[in-house]
Amino acid sequence: MGLKGNAVIGQSGGPTCVINASLVGAIQAAWDLDEIEHFYGAVHGLDGILNEQLIDLFREDPDLIEEMRFTPSAGLGTSRLKPKEPDLERTLEVFKAHDVRYFFYTGGDDSQLACHLFSELAKSSDWEIEVVGIPKTIDNNLVVTDNCPGFGSAARLAASAVQYLARDAEAFGNLEVVEIMGRHEGWLTGATAVGRADEGEAPHLVYLPEVEVNPDQFLDDVKRVYAEKGTCVIAVSEGFAFAESEVATTSDKVDEFGHARLGGVASALADMVEEEVGVRARFDRLGNLHRCFMGLASQVDLDEAYAVGKSAVERAVAAETDIMVTITRNSDEPFEWEVDSTSLMSVAGESKPVPLEWISEEQNDITEEFVTYCKPLIQGREAPADTGLPSFPRFHKHFVEPKLEKYVRPQ
Amino acid sequence: MGLKGNAVIGQSGGPTCVINASLVGAIQAAWDLDEIEHFYGAVHGLDGILNEQLIDLFREDPDLIEEMRFTPSAGLGTSRLKPKEPDLERTLEVFKAHDVRYFFYTGGDDSQLACHLFSELAKSSDWEIEVVGIPKTIDNNLVVTDNCPGFGSAARLAASAVQYLARDAEAFGNLEVVEIMGRHEGWLTGATAVGRADEGEAPHLVYLPEVEVNPDQFLDDVKRVYAEKGTCVIAVSEGFAFAESEVATTSDKVDEFGHARLGGVASALADMVEEEVGVRARFDRLGNLHRCFMGLASQVDLDEAYAVGKSAVERAVAAETDIMVTITRNSDEPFEWEVDSTSLMSVAGESKPVPLEWISEEQNDITEEFVTYCKPLIQGREAPADTGLPSFPRFHKHFVEPKLEKYVRPQ
Repeated sequence: MGLKGNAVIGQSGGPTCVINASLVGAIQAAWDLDEIEHFYGAVHGLDGILNEQLIDLFREDPDLIEEMRFTPSAGLGTSRLKPKEPDLERTLEVFKAHDVRYFFYTGGDDSQLACHLFSELAKSSDWEIEVVGIPKTIDNNLVVTDNCPGFGSAARLAASAVQYLARDAEAFGNLEVVEIMGRHEGWLTGATAVGRADEGEAPHLVYLPEVEVNPDQFLDDVKRVYAEKGTCVIAVSEGFAFAESEVATTSDKVDEFGHARLGGVASALADMVEEEVGVRARFDRLGNLHRCFMGLASQVDLDEAYAVGKSAVERAVAAETDIMVTITRNSDEPFEWEVDSTSLMSVAGESKPVPLEWISEEQNDITEEFVTYCKPLIQGREAPADTGLPSFPRFHKHFVEPKLEKYVRPQ
Repeated sequence: MGLKGNAVIGQSGGPTCVINASLVGAIQAAWDLDEIEHFYGAVHGLDGILNEQLIDLFREDPDLIEEMRFTPSAGLGTSRLKPKEPDLERTLEVFKAHDVRYFFYTGGDDSQLACHLFSELAKSSDWEIEVVGIPKTIDNNLVVTDNCPGFGSAARLAASAVQYLARDAEAFGNLEVVEIMGRHEGWLTGATAVGRADEGEAPHLVYLPEVEVNPDQFLDDVKRVYAEKGTCVIAVSEGFAFAESEVATTSDKVDEFGHARLGGVASALADMVEEEVGVRARFDRLGNLHRCFMGLASQVDLDEAYAVGKSAVERAVAAETDIMVTITRNSDEPFEWEVDSTSLMSVAGESKPVPLEWISEEQNDITEEFVTYCKPLIQGREAPADTGLPSFPRFHKHFVEPKLEKYVRPQ
């Protein structure tokens, strides 16, 4: 028998097609447990906790919860807040006030770090609470876990869109640059190459941020492909960089984590190749579509996301704490996997780039190992055809009565 | 009994998800006709005709042709060439050399004009030939026809993507600007509003290029929506313009028709609203995805495109000429339509904007009449679930022996 009390779950960072599947996995696992009396959803993640914006998830309609499983974006709202010491202390205060004994937080490496720091604080304050991180990133950059829920669906969108765009570019004999999300890790960009039905198909050149690209080699590659194919489709990460320069185009704006906002690489490269190759070049930027294009969600991704949410609750009531749930791969084909866990310490603030040996020697493609790894993650849903337009539910949001003074965040 | 001889079909302008469905409709209709001995496909449209790049479509595998029906982009390759007098004369020369008595050309208003001019030339040169235009644009801007094959699928992509992006923006409480294709006509941008499952849903503001927007009113609208919803999703045409200015952002590059290349409006507007409203604003640009996102193709669009291709051949062998095939709507719901025709003169070089009475009084939305018009066109396919990644065939391209000297285009 685990701790008895209430639970809080929050969603953090960029949403995905499947972060709500994790939420629903957790809610449905908690439904009949004696240990968890109230299951609170934090509205806009950590912001909601600090401001006591908690909703009672057990009061939501079970049918709506089931629909939420297939709803993109973060149903509770999300947050990019990076907590400072006073924020963690306030979190503990809020949790004490609401008798919270279970804390689940879905996010990337920054969020797992926040979880770990909170867990340490709770221990040192003698507040008994089980803290379990639920993995989520479209970037697939968490360590230890085989892959991150959120990646498969984003990768499927990217791989599919590149196939579509390639045919459009080919019809004109144009060059095409497609910009794929990924600041430091090229998992999503590499996944576009997994969409090739045959050797020699688009994308013809694939550039990951793990390698710096020699500009002369780059132009030679584009010219060679164009001479051979009469078109050339180039997939680049938004973090693409030429060897002698900084990131090709970096906005002067920074996000709340202090990261520079990227974007604009494809446009800059298209201008460059058009001028140097002398053939019309277009660009497309899949942007925020990576995170939310439910129409192309991956079935494995949905399944994994649900399973990690469910397992987080089961592990917490079995007194596992200060852990993140992980996926372990047992076999590539048929794809077999199971849910496992690792310490928050082992993943907090760490990131996993594409291994350099999975990038081709010429540094303009991925290897067969990457394909073998990625392919099972990006298969589509076997859902019946939906001929309508997308429509998604929202939580009714039964708010819990706040018990503390309003929080003023220290500057 | 119609003319006996060979036929040429070409694809022109921007491809769509369904332009190949028109091609397949034409091939399959021509298959068993005594009138058409050889059915030639012009590789890259008019360019292919001028250079005698013709392939024998009856030698293509029938199964491949059936697959081509569901392949986006222009299977023959496309062209943006705007013919001058010598090009039309060369076309006639090529057609005489290959005994071409039927000419089918799939494209927008510029292409229909080219068809008409060619038809006039052939008449005045006493070369008997039936010339039939097949409508195609994602912009839906051809006159006379109820709608243009290509529009429904592009509209379905735009309407769906806006629903996805809206949920992502809402999870952050961000502002979001989505840039939709459409230089002078707002059919695609308006279609995004048809994606609202309920009143008050995104897109909250919709700006068509048919109206000039007052910048103060625009900012007031954004602030009002944000105050009410905690987010604001704005759909704008790439041809968006503020009242006192030129098009917000125009590239200095021009395409082969002499039109300025657009793009960048959403980025500029996002910067502006972020600064003026004081809330983070992102932008997305659906770009070339409008033309090729087969995963969200519209069933009605596929059906219409096939039907106009088939009808073009049937009408030509019945001695109709100098016409474009059209769609006539008989009923909105249930949606009933039939294939009809109009003179090329009536559509050549003309374009159909969204009627001003279908734009809301505040000029930031469309009316119910627009919804009624658009809704039946953007329903999805009842195809079985496809769990793989997109993969499409290509023609084998059995080239016809050229009979003329190489063509050197006069400057």
